[in-house]
Amino acid sequence: MHAVIVDSAIYRDGRRTEGPDDLSDALGEARATGDAFLWVGLHEPTEDEFELVSSEFGLHPLAVEDALTAHQRPKLEVYDDSLFMVVKPVVYEPEHDTVATGELMIFLGDSFVVTVRHGEGAPLTAVRKRLEAEPDVLRHGPTAVMYALCDAAVDHYVDVAGELQTDLEELETEVFAPNGSTKNTAARIYTFKRQVLEFRRATGPLAQPVNRLAGAAGVPFVHDQSRPFFRDVSDHLTRVNEQVEGLDRLLSDILSAHLAQMGVRQNDDMRKISAWAAMAAVPTMVAGIYGMNFDHMPELKWAWAYPTVVLLMAGAVLGLYRLFKRRGWL
Amino acid sequence: MHAVIVDSAIYRDGRRTEGPDDLSDALGEARATGDAFLWVGLHEPTEDEFELVSSEFGLHPLAVEDALTAHQRPKLEVYDDSLFMVVKPVVYEPEHDTVATGELMIFLGDSFVVTVRHGEGAPLTAVRKRLEAEPDVLRHGPTAVMYALCDAAVDHYVDVAGELQTDLEELETEVFAPNGSTKNTAARIYTFKRQVLEFRRATGPLAQPVNRLAGAAGVPFVHDQSRPFFRDVSDHLTRVNEQVEGLDRLLSDILSAHLAQMGVRQNDDMRKISAWAAMAAVPTMVAGIYGMNFDHMPELKWAWAYPTVVLLMAGAVLGLYRLFKRRGWL
Amino acid sequence: MHAVIVDSAIYRDGRRTEGPDDLSDALGEARATGDAFLWVGLHEPTEDEFELVSSEFGLHPLAVEDALTAHQRPKLEVYDDSLFMVVKPVVYEPEHDTVATGELMIFLGDSFVVTVRHGEGAPLTAVRKRLEAEPDVLRHGPTAVMYALCDAAVDHYVDVAGELQTDLEELETEVFAPNGSTKNTAARIYTFKRQVLEFRRATGPLAQPVNRLAGAAGVPFVHDQSRPFFRDVSDHLTRVNEQVEGLDRLLSDILSAHLAQMGVRQNDDMRKISAWAAMAAVPTMVAGIYGMNFDHMPELKWAWAYPTVVLLMAGAVLGLYRLFKRRGWL
Amino acid sequence: MHAVIVDSAIYRDGRRTEGPDDLSDALGEARATGDAFLWVGLHEPTEDEFELVSSEFGLHPLAVEDALTAHQRPKLEVYDDSLFMVVKPVVYEPEHDTVATGELMIFLGDSFVVTVRHGEGAPLTAVRKRLEAEPDVLRHGPTAVMYALCDAAVDHYVDVAGELQTDLEELETEVFAPNGSTKNTAARIYTFKRQVLEFRRATGPLAQPVNRLAGAAGVPFVHDQSRPFFRDVSDHLTRVNEQVEGLDRLLSDILSAHLAQMGVRQNDDMRKISAWAAMAAVPTMVAGIYGMNFDHMPELKWAWAYPTVVLLMAGAVLGLYRLFKRRGWL
Amino acid sequence: MHAVIVDSAIYRDGRRTEGPDDLSDALGEARATGDAFLWVGLHEPTEDEFELVSSEFGLHPLAVEDALTAHQRPKLEVYDDSLFMVVKPVVYEPEHDTVATGELMIFLGDSFVVTVRHGEGAPLTAVRKRLEAEPDVLRHGPTAVMYALCDAAVDHYVDVAGELQTDLEELETEVFAPNGSTKNTAARIYTFKRQVLEFRRATGPLAQPVNRLAGAAGVPFVHDQSRPFFRDVSDHLTRVNEQVEGLDRLLSDILSAHLAQMGVRQNDDMRKISAWAAMAAVPTMVAGIYGMNFDHMPELKWAWAYPTVVLLMAGAVLGLYRLFKRRGWL
Repeated sequence: MHAVIVDSAIYRDGRRTEGPDDLSDALGEARATGDAFLWVGLHEPTEDEFELVSSEFGLHPLAVEDALTAHQRPKLEVYDDSLFMVVKPVVYEPEHDTVATGELMIFLGDSFVVTVRHGEGAPLTAVRKRLEAEPDVLRHGPTAVMYALCDAAVDHYVDVAGELQTDLEELETEVFAPNGSTKNTAARIYTFKRQVLEFRRATGPLAQPVNRLAGAAGVPFVHDQSRPFFRDVSDHLTRVNEQVEGLDRLLSDILSAHLAQMGVRQNDDMRKISAWAAMAAVPTMVAGIYGMNFDHMPELKWAWAYPTVVLLMAGAVLGLYRLFKRRGWL
Repeated sequence: MHAVIVDSAIYRDGRRTEGPDDLSDALGEARATGDAFLWVGLHEPTEDEFELVSSEFGLHPLAVEDALTAHQRPKLEVYDDSLFMVVKPVVYEPEHDTVATGELMIFLGDSFVVTVRHGEGAPLTAVRKRLEAEPDVLRHGPTAVMYALCDAAVDHYVDVAGELQTDLEELETEVFAPNGSTKNTAARIYTFKRQVLEFRRATGPLAQPVNRLAGAAGVPFVHDQSRPFFRDVSDHLTRVNEQVEGLDRLLSDILSAHLAQMGVRQNDDMRKISAWAAMAAVPTMVAGIYGMNFDHMPELKWAWAYPTVVLLMAGAVLGLYRLFKRRGWL
Repeated sequence: MHAVIVDSAIYRDGRRTEGPDDLSDALGEARATGDAFLWVGLHEPTEDEFELVSSEFGLHPLAVEDALTAHQRPKLEVYDDSLFMVVKPVVYEPEHDTVATGELMIFLGDSFVVTVRHGEGAPLTAVRKRLEAEPDVLRHGPTAVMYALCDAAVDHYVDVAGELQTDLEELETEVFAPNGSTKNTAARIYTFKRQVLEFRRATGPLAQPVNRLAGAAGVPFVHDQSRPFFRDVSDHLTRVNEQVEGLDRLLSDILSAHLAQMGVRQNDDMRKISAWAAMAAVPTMVAGIYGMNFDHMPELKWAWAYPTVVLLMAGAVLGLYRLFKRRGWL
Repeated sequence: MHAVIVDSAIYRDGRRTEGPDDLSDALGEARATGDAFLWVGLHEPTEDEFELVSSEFGLHPLAVEDALTAHQRPKLEVYDDSLFMVVKPVVYEPEHDTVATGELMIFLGDSFVVTVRHGEGAPLTAVRKRLEAEPDVLRHGPTAVMYALCDAAVDHYVDVAGELQTDLEELETEVFAPNGSTKNTAARIYTFKRQVLEFRRATGPLAQPVNRLAGAAGVPFVHDQSRPFFRDVSDHLTRVNEQVEGLDRLLSDILSAHLAQMGVRQNDDMRKISAWAAMAAVPTMVAGIYGMNFDHMPELKWAWAYPTVVLLMAGAVLGLYRLFKRRGWL
Repeated sequence: MHAVIVDSAIYRDGRRTEGPDDLSDALGEARATGDAFLWVGLHEPTEDEFELVSSEFGLHPLAVEDALTAHQRPKLEVYDDSLFMVVKPVVYEPEHDTVATGELMIFLGDSFVVTVRHGEGAPLTAVRKRLEAEPDVLRHGPTAVMYALCDAAVDHYVDVAGELQTDLEELETEVFAPNGSTKNTAARIYTFKRQVLEFRRATGPLAQPVNRLAGAAGVPFVHDQSRPFFRDVSDHLTRVNEQVEGLDRLLSDILSAHLAQMGVRQNDDMRKISAWAAMAAVPTMVAGIYGMNFDHMPELKWAWAYPTVVLLMAGAVLGLYRLFKRRGWL
């Protein structure tokens, strides 16, 4: 079973202390000391593996079920003896410009915090490292872990939103370049919108739980002094959500602009094509007339008729060319 | 009348016990024992058939009227002596990619629960089987039945939403394939949107009743301890509703993208057509000129004139071909 | 004045009793008996005619003003000594697929109810008949009349919404039929949208007053026991409003789909036309070449040249035909 | 300064009494008598002119600043010793189908009301006349003036909304007439939308202040008995706002319908043009063939060849004509 | 460090007094005097530079972090011993018609106010100058500074919104001018929308903090008497937000109108082109017929045949011209 336990330690007075290997003993030890807490980190545990942990900490069966199956919504559940939070960290894959979402579940009790990670994208190890370097924050107890994870996830959202913003700017340049729109432009915009939707599914529903943690009403097991920290997270999250909503609307606008541009381009092309067609049609018509086989067509006999007619044709074509040029059709 | 009663049993301490056949006696027996309850399951009863049941259990006449006529909205009604809930289970029919909705009415009183099923898609029998295998849950009384039915219906919503998601991905592949859009694409997208709307009519209005059952305010006849269970159902339902709303918006986006794609395709086609037309027009024009019947057209006499002109024509066509190729019109 | 009083009667203990003809006497009699009430029904009264009634019942001048002028919004006003409610019944005219709205004003006091009808579509007489057949309901006093009228109006909304739904299905069949879209399709969809808007103006604003009548806060002059009845009406109304909102959105979607379909059709037509044009252009070009008047065109002398060239032309046309057929342009 | 004071009078017991010319004396007199009040009406005062009035009545400096600069939002401000309300009356200019907005500021204190008018469209004089004819209403004190002005402005909104509705119907007729859409249609619809937006800027934000005046919470300096009157105004305003929102949405729908119609028209035109082009191309091609200069073209020698070919040409054209007619292209 | 401190002074009884240079001494002096306060203005301080200030004033570490990194959302944070507000002033750059946003952070405590400016566009110096000229306002203490800064920023928003309104009108004129739409129109509209979005990101989120400052609930460290001032700012901000939202919607409408206009223009062009093509096709066809080489074409022998045919051709062209003119195709 220890394979899925990524890390486990007791934190006393903001400092890591190695406690007993057995979870039961470790929890007992953490509880015995007033302000110590046990932090257990798991990675994609199976049902059986998690069963041992959950029974030890007395986790709520519904939360346990959620923690085992992926594809949860970000949320915060308050049970009688523990909190359960789901956060969906995201990873931006630059080679495909796509967004992948992982899952991070946090169980928080009186003197323990259990974190379960699904998929990549959960910056768990880095957070533990960073926290262990800041004993002042760790001293806040389990809440500090929850705050640090939310903060790390939301900071990452900010980065990903920035990447998407850059992608949008690239798309803009491409769409509005002369002859920039191709058959794939619409598909590209659509695919981008899907990425944005995927991203919003991770960031949007997190707003409500974070606001609750930051709110005046208070949540059990959460320090009152950590409220400004969650308010800060909430603030960053709101900015991400606004930015992403803006992205979504701009993508709709780009699609409309692209459609309008296509209309203009088609019209321009049609005009250009028609102008050239007219320049070919006039000599063809004149030539047809002088190709008629009437016996009595006096012009045909004239010595300078042919060059004159050819010159007239050329003149007509030139005249049309100038006319179309002036009207902006060419 | 017993034809419409699909199943009826008394549950005492979480275990099924066969009670008297007569409803009145059975209800009396269930009431006599403190924590027992009677669960009667009906399937599309007629007015007369249901009359007997409703008078026995003292159901509210308005709820009875709703239970007889189909096409109800999902809702929860709190009467003085019973609850009435309507849930709309859905069935996904894979051969037509369509969604069909049934109806499930639940009457819940102090020591009885009456379930009425309309149409297919109500996984009632399976739920009873599953519940009877979990005496711990059944011990919660009638609320357990209500929770299990809601849970089963919502779990099925999750599956159907997944099927629709798959359909969307198929549609995306089809629309964005080269030459993938046909005359029926718009009709297909529209039909899909209608299915989604149909589905939302079942899932959307259920959110409010389930939230009420999960909420802190409490609902009569509902165990306080079952609240986390309803919260879990509510959570899954919210995910379905968000997913389906996302589907709906993506379908609108696909339609817009399809429209833009059509614009680009038309422009591309027009350019291609015009290029070929130009390549035919130039030789036709030249041929017309040399088909003129002027007496004095010295070129006509020259021995190599004809092959020269034909070569010039071919050269012009080739030149145009290259020009159009370079400009991306061909 | 009695011409505009459609009907007037005292109801005592749920049964109709003919009271004195004079309104003043009748009201006095109704008030004298504890649980009796007077129900006066009017049809499009003039200002003078209504003046007599309103002064007798002490109706609020603002409500009286509203009752005289048509084009009111559905609403509920609570005055010190009476309620005033406006309901807008609708009539569906099948020959034109249009929706017409009438108006129904209800004044409700301690022991009277005055109903004023404007335009057609107010199923007043039928409601009175039906109520008189149900003394149990009538025993609830004036509230019963208000409930029965709301219920009748909303039941009628349900029917009209069903008719509109049928119209939508007809429209869908028409739009998505091959060659089904004509110049009038857009106009038809737009006109349909206007009907739906008209309908929503009657049904949408009624939701708030009906919810207030159904709500826990209570409204003066309204029986507490009639709340479930109004909740039932509210429920049906919500269903109508959701259905009509769905209609409205589907109509927008149909218009978009129609637009996209037009784009595809135009492209298909353009391809077909161009294919045929190409098939005519090639022989024309070849014929032009052999119509040139050069002296030295050796082919012209050959015996089989003409049939060969004609066969080549036919072959080119056939080849193009097959090519276009294979590419789906024909 | 008296040039900008349009009218000024003391109203005692609902009747106009000419008081002292000097504002200070007049206010003193009004205050001395219990239920009298002073009504001063101004028209576009300069800063200096208004300074005298505002210092006399002790108006709040921020309200004074707002009253001097135009382009305010409709609002209600409650200060310690006075109310300040901004209403934006509108004028419909039938010759241009445009909407112009004026401004009307109302300062209301214990025994005075000061009204400031900017631009046209403020039916101030008419309101004063009408109020003076209704001593019963004027007896309510300054509130009566505020109510009467709001009522007059909102009644005018109702009229303007009616005019816009008529304009919409004209536009509908024009757009959906055969060949009705021109290059200006889109511009006309857009301009109409701008007018509607302009109108909404006057009517929309007024809803909240009027609701506050009509609400149960109460506003200082406002009679409790005038609440039903403000509720009536609020009701009319809600109707206007709903109607105008409907207009706005219908204009969007018309634009979409116009776009779809253009698509259909273009397709129809393209088909018609192509049909005629085909009818010209066939004889041209045939003529080209018989214009070739091969020595051995036996048909050329036949006596009846020419009329036969011409008849065949005519036959082909006729056949095409019938074909296109049957397919609905012509 | 003093390089980043733009200005620093103690204000006592509304008047500037030069205090000690050292911040610590200055703060002590301000605190010692009852109603004096210290105002320190900083410009883009580095972390180290700001560290000195923040530790002196005991600013909250989260607020300090926000003040150092740019790209904050407008917000108001209430900490135990200070307020923290972020405002985003905007600058309109007329040469590019673009909007640039700066940042302004305000820390407000019992007897100090610290302002931090990032980027241009923060009219800090001007505000200090103006405030020092109004001792009455400055007497309100630190709140006066906060109010004056908000007021200045929002007043500037009003100006920028006016500039954008002017830009919109220019765009309207351009789009709706005959032949006014070009390939860049869609790009221009889109770019405008982006500017508007950028602007909304500064103005939109400020509404909530300003409303909180203006609200009845009260905010610590803020004078009750300054509430009407913040209400005034809030009012102007609401107007800006409404105007900008209107702009955004009008831009969408313009894009739609532009699209519809393109459709009409294309149709008009197609008709015009086709008409001219028809006028060329008819003589070409006739000429082709008389160019056929049949031996027996009696017309060819007639003396007047040629001029007659040419006249007929001209007549046909003229007839077509008139026909198309009458139908509005030319």
